[in-house]
Amino acid sequence: MSNTEQIKITLPDGTVKEFSKGSSSMDVAKSISEGLARNVLAAKVNGEIWDADRAIENDSEVQLLTWNDEGGKYAFWHSSAHLLAEALEDLYPGIKLGIGPPIENGFYYDIDFGDTEFGEQDLEKVEKKFLELARQKNVFDRKEISKDDALKYYQEKGDEYKLELIDGLEDGSITFYTQGNFTDLCRGPHIPHTGFVKAVKLLNVAGAYWRGDEKNKQLTRIYGVSFPKQKELKEYLERLEEAKKRDHRKLGKELELFTFSEKVGLGLPLWLPKGAVLRDRLESFLKKAQVRAGYDPVVTPHIGHKQLYLTSGHYEKYGEDSFKPIQTPHEGEEFMLKPMNCPHHCEIYKSKPRSYKDLPVRYAEFGTVYRYEQSGELHGLTRVRGFTQDDAHIFCRPDQVKEEFIKVIDLVLYVFNALGFEDFTAQVSLRDPENKSKYIGGDEVWDRAEREIQEAADEKGLKTIVEYGEAAFYGPKLDFMVKDALGRSWQLGTIQVDYNLPERFELEYVGSDNNRHRPVMIHRAPFGSMERFVAVLIEHCGGNFPLWLAPEQIAVLPISEKFADYGQEVFRKLQAADIHGFIDHRDEKIGRKIRDAEVKKIPYMIIAGEKEAQEGKVSVRKHGEGDLGSMTIEEFIEHINDVKSKELLNS
Amino acid sequence: MSNTEQIKITLPDGTVKEFSKGSSSMDVAKSISEGLARNVLAAKVNGEIWDADRAIENDSEVQLLTWNDEGGKYAFWHSSAHLLAEALEDLYPGIKLGIGPPIENGFYYDIDFGDTEFGEQDLEKVEKKFLELARQKNVFDRKEISKDDALKYYQEKGDEYKLELIDGLEDGSITFYTQGNFTDLCRGPHIPHTGFVKAVKLLNVAGAYWRGDEKNKQLTRIYGVSFPKQKELKEYLERLEEAKKRDHRKLGKELELFTFSEKVGLGLPLWLPKGAVLRDRLESFLKKAQVRAGYDPVVTPHIGHKQLYLTSGHYEKYGEDSFKPIQTPHEGEEFMLKPMNCPHHCEIYKSKPRSYKDLPVRYAEFGTVYRYEQSGELHGLTRVRGFTQDDAHIFCRPDQVKEEFIKVIDLVLYVFNALGFEDFTAQVSLRDPENKSKYIGGDEVWDRAEREIQEAADEKGLKTIVEYGEAAFYGPKLDFMVKDALGRSWQLGTIQVDYNLPERFELEYVGSDNNRHRPVMIHRAPFGSMERFVAVLIEHCGGNFPLWLAPEQIAVLPISEKFADYGQEVFRKLQAADIHGFIDHRDEKIGRKIRDAEVKKIPYMIIAGEKEAQEGKVSVRKHGEGDLGSMTIEEFIEHINDVKSKELLNS
Repeated sequence: MSNTEQIKITLPDGTVKEFSKGSSSMDVAKSISEGLARNVLAAKVNGEIWDADRAIENDSEVQLLTWNDEGGKYAFWHSSAHLLAEALEDLYPGIKLGIGPPIENGFYYDIDFGDTEFGEQDLEKVEKKFLELARQKNVFDRKEISKDDALKYYQEKGDEYKLELIDGLEDGSITFYTQGNFTDLCRGPHIPHTGFVKAVKLLNVAGAYWRGDEKNKQLTRIYGVSFPKQKELKEYLERLEEAKKRDHRKLGKELELFTFSEKVGLGLPLWLPKGAVLRDRLESFLKKAQVRAGYDPVVTPHIGHKQLYLTSGHYEKYGEDSFKPIQTPHEGEEFMLKPMNCPHHCEIYKSKPRSYKDLPVRYAEFGTVYRYEQSGELHGLTRVRGFTQDDAHIFCRPDQVKEEFIKVIDLVLYVFNALGFEDFTAQVSLRDPENKSKYIGGDEVWDRAEREIQEAADEKGLKTIVEYGEAAFYGPKLDFMVKDALGRSWQLGTIQVDYNLPERFELEYVGSDNNRHRPVMIHRAPFGSMERFVAVLIEHCGGNFPLWLAPEQIAVLPISEKFADYGQEVFRKLQAADIHGFIDHRDEKIGRKIRDAEVKKIPYMIIAGEKEAQEGKVSVRKHGEGDLGSMTIEEFIEHINDVKSKELLNS
Repeated sequence: MSNTEQIKITLPDGTVKEFSKGSSSMDVAKSISEGLARNVLAAKVNGEIWDADRAIENDSEVQLLTWNDEGGKYAFWHSSAHLLAEALEDLYPGIKLGIGPPIENGFYYDIDFGDTEFGEQDLEKVEKKFLELARQKNVFDRKEISKDDALKYYQEKGDEYKLELIDGLEDGSITFYTQGNFTDLCRGPHIPHTGFVKAVKLLNVAGAYWRGDEKNKQLTRIYGVSFPKQKELKEYLERLEEAKKRDHRKLGKELELFTFSEKVGLGLPLWLPKGAVLRDRLESFLKKAQVRAGYDPVVTPHIGHKQLYLTSGHYEKYGEDSFKPIQTPHEGEEFMLKPMNCPHHCEIYKSKPRSYKDLPVRYAEFGTVYRYEQSGELHGLTRVRGFTQDDAHIFCRPDQVKEEFIKVIDLVLYVFNALGFEDFTAQVSLRDPENKSKYIGGDEVWDRAEREIQEAADEKGLKTIVEYGEAAFYGPKLDFMVKDALGRSWQLGTIQVDYNLPERFELEYVGSDNNRHRPVMIHRAPFGSMERFVAVLIEHCGGNFPLWLAPEQIAVLPISEKFADYGQEVFRKLQAADIHGFIDHRDEKIGRKIRDAEVKKIPYMIIAGEKEAQEGKVSVRKHGEGDLGSMTIEEFIEHINDVKSKELLNS
């Protein structure tokens, strides 16, 4: 026993246990419970994800990772990528392999099939082989290998992609992983054995240039996703199906919210009437909240002199990859489409002298900005070339940062609640404490701002994640990560502290000490951008907008032409009560009218026929719920107002 | 008697009188009344303005022109320019003369003073000489002269400018005018004699390149204005003084409505908070009216693919003198800043098939457009490089044009009334009947549209002026010419029929006959542009906006800090009642607070002191009117709402 050296393992809850040197995370798991051990996929050892069976030689902090951890999924899908490659090599000997990483939802592998044709029709066969190999419960065997031996292995195999990768690696840092008959150049980590993977779906096949460079050869990328249980795959595929139904591009077209025109230009949305109404409601809603919160509106142009962006630094940042400057026909001036509203707001701040008593000054603008994106990267409303930020800039004293942060958080929460986003976390991005020199602004202001942002988030009871090193070079920030109805995460609202622009624009205020001081700037956007927010909102509610926001809240459906007049009377009364929608005068059966209104996702259908006209009432149907019975128009108006005020009072 | 040939003179009222051949318009005037003759300055003979004493040789239509006619003023100021030149030659022998035309309000003369210094300090001396010469009642003597003789005259005088002008003239068309000791190359016409000019004011001195070309020598331009009565000059100068006080650039700065920044770019307004509120109120006001009038909002980007403007023809129209295309960094695309919203709206119209039952479709957008102007031509908010049109495009069937025109006129009248513009005329611009080929679209559609526009204007009881040949090539139009409080005329709202863009964009609808037809497009903008409209509005009301529009409607003025809490309570109640403004918490005497609020043109000052706090009342002062006495807060709110609703009910 005397030669068995002991090491100390510290678990996340602070428990410290002793193990003999060379024990693995799996040994740690087994010491806790066999049940746990059966679920362990990998482990975080001193902050790094390791194979669960890798020997631990020193005192360490160990966090066991299962399917419920990001790191566990990462290892699971990484191993699935290897299984995919193994299945493919088995079925298509002689193929060459690019890279095969785990991604946010699943994994892919890039393959050079040579002359062999491969398409989506072949995926089922590969899935079958994949599961057959998985069931063999082959362990993932990690082996450190010299660069020479690694090169020799792939020279023999004749895989130039792997050779190129190894070329870029340093000797001593190279590892191979082998499961069954398949070996791959790989840093790991992997799950204990292939048997954990019980379900797989290969989703699609796409072209991908080797190393993302269009000068290189195009490989075949196969995307897949895998799970520890068949049931989970089924649920995942259902969610995927639901996401397709809710795709904002599809619903945007069906509900006539927006469109694109090649002649106007890709990535430049044209908001159709219903979309424009929706957007206008969102803007009015936020404008009102902003007036209450002490913001002042401003309006600035969509272009600015190049000099403005040289001063702000945006020219340098966006210069290369942005729309080129706009030259004037005479006078040799150059303007830029504005990529951000902040420089304009700085110039407004500068338009008169400021005293410490005037601060904070809060300038709000729904400002449309333009940024070049390659056409291949454009995507519906989430990736566009022109978008409207619900932007505001707060110019305040350093001692006001925390209070302003709290007020902005209040505003963001108000917005999220009114729109039914209930599940979100706040990501607080701070400096890299190891590398403070890459940030502008002194230690004192940073420390204070970072502390205050966290305090503000805590005081508002936000779930926070702190990310070191993720701050912008100009200041710390807080981003809201919102989960939609399908559990997908979106970055929406943002609040950012900025020490840089006040410096570049030489912004000042006269303090109570009569000296000149620099204000701090806070950028904030609760929606982020109207385009992206509306896209997420469409997918979140599947086009069934909250009543207060629905472009068309009601459809009045006269049963036949005989009741057109009564329908018109009802419609006029509803319009007078600020309830919007349309009346369906078409010569169609009532069943058809109802079906069409359901497709359009109109919240309420108001049916006007003989009985209703006689009684001076209406029959009301709710979208997706059916008959609410008959009521007087006044009762219906009360009902509507009740629903709307409840939606907004939430917030 | 037999050798006195008679000619027939037709007067504007249709009366025909006989005169001996060679009689002048002055003879015609004398035959009517000596009093009239004393006021005749010139005459329109067969549509051309002539000297009143010029002999008429044939049957003619004659309209006598006095100071009350544009043509009369034109001759009067033209003659005044000659008087100015005469006075200058008398005082500064050897000067050389450029041109000296009448302008909208007065006249100018461009002078080459050689080595002599001349500045504003010298104007008084010139005015004195001018009046001295005027009092001599010298007649303007018209003489036809050969080109050779004309050249000889100016060669002797040594005036290269006049020589250059004569060079460009055709022999046989040249006339000289002489009054007193001064002769000028001139087409005329002039007033009977210099004695008509009883008052003159030389307004300022500016530099002006010969023939407007900066490669030429800079001459000294002297601006002046003159009148038949001293009293009229006095009134004019008072109006000028008032106009200076109301100058929107001056008030815009004082009331903190907007500003400019060289760094952002000349001609690109930055709307400050109060201006942005004002603008937002105007937009909301029109948006609401447009919803009631059946318009649908749309939102489109501020750029468009070059192809879009090639299709629309705007590239050709604005190409040369506009902002250059915006190139993308990759993909070689070219975009343009949009000079107009119509092409975008056409693309929205095209985004789905249309049936005759869907029309009219009315798309409204507060769309910001950009057009290059030379920096020297920029002027406050009236001449800018970027401006927001309150634009809408109506796509309708030909049989709907009249009804749509009437609806637009209703909307424009509603807007003008709510904003206190009471004096306006409608200028109807029709085709040149002599030159129909330069217009797009067939006779039938034009005749119908022209007739219907006039019928629409008549039915709405508009004062109209019909201008033939002033239609756009693409359709007839109606412009609203509005007189402001100082009697100055502005072109504001516009309604234009367009047959061209539907053709260029191949817009279609399926008619009741199941065939494809072209819709007619109507462009309209009641404000014209937000920038220009706000500028005119500021000058019209001198910064005293209607209450519903005032960015700050009230100022709550606590008499001292002791009543700060009561003031705050009052302020909160007013805010809750949607009455906006501020509370003046400064440690200043109440007199000072009132004065400052008066300067800011705040409509109502609410004074809160001991008596008011005890009685639960407020003392109210109205801007420019003084004390309204004390009242409860509820009474004040009622008063305010009363005033606002009266302002808007006007309309």
